[in-house]
Amino acid sequence: MAYLNENYLKLQAGYLFPEVARRVRQFCEINPEAAKRLVRCGIGDVTEPLPCAAINAMKRAIEELGHHETFRGYGPEQGYEFLRSTIAEHDYRNHKIDIADDEIFVSDGSKCDCGFILDILGDQNKVAVPDPVYPVYVDTNVMAGHSGPARRDGSYEGILYLPCTAENQFVPESPKEHVDLVYLCFPNNPTGAVATHRQLTRWVEYAHSHEAILLFDAAYEAYISDPEIPHSIFEIPGARDCAIEFRSFSKKGGFTGVRCGFTVMPKSLYARTESGRRSPLHALWYRRWSTKANSVSYPVQRGAEALYSPEGREQVRALIAHYMTNAQILRDAATNAGLKVFGGTNAPYIWSKTLNGLTSWQMFDRVLRDLNVVITPGSGFGAQGEGYFRISAFNSRQNAEKVARRLKELENS
Amino acid sequence: MAYLNENYLKLQAGYLFPEVARRVRQFCEINPEAAKRLVRCGIGDVTEPLPCAAINAMKRAIEELGHHETFRGYGPEQGYEFLRSTIAEHDYRNHKIDIADDEIFVSDGSKCDCGFILDILGDQNKVAVPDPVYPVYVDTNVMAGHSGPARRDGSYEGILYLPCTAENQFVPESPKEHVDLVYLCFPNNPTGAVATHRQLTRWVEYAHSHEAILLFDAAYEAYISDPEIPHSIFEIPGARDCAIEFRSFSKKGGFTGVRCGFTVMPKSLYARTESGRRSPLHALWYRRWSTKANSVSYPVQRGAEALYSPEGREQVRALIAHYMTNAQILRDAATNAGLKVFGGTNAPYIWSKTLNGLTSWQMFDRVLRDLNVVITPGSGFGAQGEGYFRISAFNSRQNAEKVARRLKELENS
Repeated sequence: MAYLNENYLKLQAGYLFPEVARRVRQFCEINPEAAKRLVRCGIGDVTEPLPCAAINAMKRAIEELGHHETFRGYGPEQGYEFLRSTIAEHDYRNHKIDIADDEIFVSDGSKCDCGFILDILGDQNKVAVPDPVYPVYVDTNVMAGHSGPARRDGSYEGILYLPCTAENQFVPESPKEHVDLVYLCFPNNPTGAVATHRQLTRWVEYAHSHEAILLFDAAYEAYISDPEIPHSIFEIPGARDCAIEFRSFSKKGGFTGVRCGFTVMPKSLYARTESGRRSPLHALWYRRWSTKANSVSYPVQRGAEALYSPEGREQVRALIAHYMTNAQILRDAATNAGLKVFGGTNAPYIWSKTLNGLTSWQMFDRVLRDLNVVITPGSGFGAQGEGYFRISAFNSRQNAEKVARRLKELENS
Repeated sequence: MAYLNENYLKLQAGYLFPEVARRVRQFCEINPEAAKRLVRCGIGDVTEPLPCAAINAMKRAIEELGHHETFRGYGPEQGYEFLRSTIAEHDYRNHKIDIADDEIFVSDGSKCDCGFILDILGDQNKVAVPDPVYPVYVDTNVMAGHSGPARRDGSYEGILYLPCTAENQFVPESPKEHVDLVYLCFPNNPTGAVATHRQLTRWVEYAHSHEAILLFDAAYEAYISDPEIPHSIFEIPGARDCAIEFRSFSKKGGFTGVRCGFTVMPKSLYARTESGRRSPLHALWYRRWSTKANSVSYPVQRGAEALYSPEGREQVRALIAHYMTNAQILRDAATNAGLKVFGGTNAPYIWSKTLNGLTSWQMFDRVLRDLNVVITPGSGFGAQGEGYFRISAFNSRQNAEKVARRLKELENS
């Protein structure tokens, strides 16, 4: 009988968000009245309409596909030049960051890229992840056989967890031991923390001294308002030799259902074979895309390009201002309700301690039952997330205000 | 220094189509006059405008994303229910094939799925591929470490090649030895061959007796006109226990640049661990999609759904009739030019012997130079493809007729 990939059998329970969905569904079935007033601040999914610039560009692109003269079939597997150059120019070179057009690889989202990147990396690599962590980093490594079995707390043997705590402002310290791959995510999901230039410089130094690779997830960079906070790992000198960056239009342009993101793979980044032969990862990544994909839907690439037009940029700014105003409303309400809160100033997530030492899932169930609000339990993101929960600012203003009002009832509930 | 996936270094030269593109680019640079009359029958890429039904559905879906009331963010990772049920009903249950909605997994194309499927399968599996072969089956297995090094003829040690020759009508016989995974593609790319019910039944019998899995690529099923030829492996009794099917809207609905396809993963298909524990692959595949992807762009899924509407089906029929008329024109012209041709009756590809014992790349270069027509060299698809070339019927009528006229000059060239 054919063999399956046994590593999948190591995976714990459901992936976090399906489990949240299951509990919410169950609650709504049992409490149809409460279900009517439910507000979802769980999964970090955008709620506001797509920017007009993207809508119009996608419609035009679809119209092109309806005519002989303008029809397009397969595009370049790494993405259309028009989009790669727009990204490289606006997100990097305009900020004095040296990134070439062909170092941009267009994909259908950074969740996908975070998994795909393991295709080109060796199974011998020792992997470090922050804790709490976006579960995709861990689960894709488990699937690829880069871990041992799960421990009772849900963590996996063979993966190094870097504690992110209130004490280190949720920015992990580099470890004493050697690792080959380090996942970093700033602005952070789930904690909403950001890393300073100095903190990222220390990570680049660690990567250089250990010849490690930083896998830098910048999916939320558009939410940074503090001018001192880096948007890209490539703002740090030396990062071109030790880092890969993932970005997404999901949260920036409301593209969670449209699907587009990209990876920045510098040509100066090398990895090695078992026997010590060095090879640039760019060539492998290029080959991966040529062989395994046909890039992203043409209309979607036109939609992403339009986010960089003058109107598009204005509309993106308005979209982010909307969610960040929500974040402020929710942050203030949570603080006033006596919760100890973090994040929510350069990121659309508020990270809060639970009340009275409740576990994360106890808090989830209580907030669902008493406030009819869906949050995300911190323990779903790792052992260090226990005792915390995440509130997402991705919502309508009306819903954010509703949740803010309901948070006042929390202490009496 | 971090390790790379060394299996990538085993891969031979460029993936076929980039190499074709390179030679064409070079030829055009040197011969700018000839470049103007170039006709491309190389890569199997559609040329005709998208069906109106899909255009209108995608525009409507994009409009929905522009309004608060109808906006959608993340969709279900396995695809929207509206599309999964439409596919299962129209492509399967309406043909008395027992496939449930949740056995359909929507993806961004069957090229992608052919690579992704290896995520959930064990590295111990012994793999068989047809020869000639769609290069993606082989290259993704090489990348995953399922092969030894390449041989001088471009084949890889550790992979079993099943010869498809004129003698067996390009339908491979099942091997004497044991294999765990068998790739089958009917209608075939590149040979244009189709398999009869009886031939597929023999493969299902092989799979049962060896507890092997058939990976059945039916990307071209819409081109079958002979009512006796199966469109799906699941038309064969017993296939639900031993087969996975890949389908695509690329060639059926002109979606090569729009990107949508699907996998049929029956819940009755099992694989085993090293220790002999049996587990359904459906659960692993479901988990793969939950963890590694966010499904396909919402407007694209609406476009795919629209191909099944009454107008959509009519438009798909017209599109396929267009390409199949091209196939007939090209097939007749090639035959009249003295070429020995196969395929092109239930498939959009014509598979032809080269003239006078030329190698495939010699024929490619000669046809490019003398006729200014781009074909695909058969040897690019495997050792058994040497001495053959592929003509694609994906073209405008005008271009197909041009190529037909030029083929007359072939003998004198």
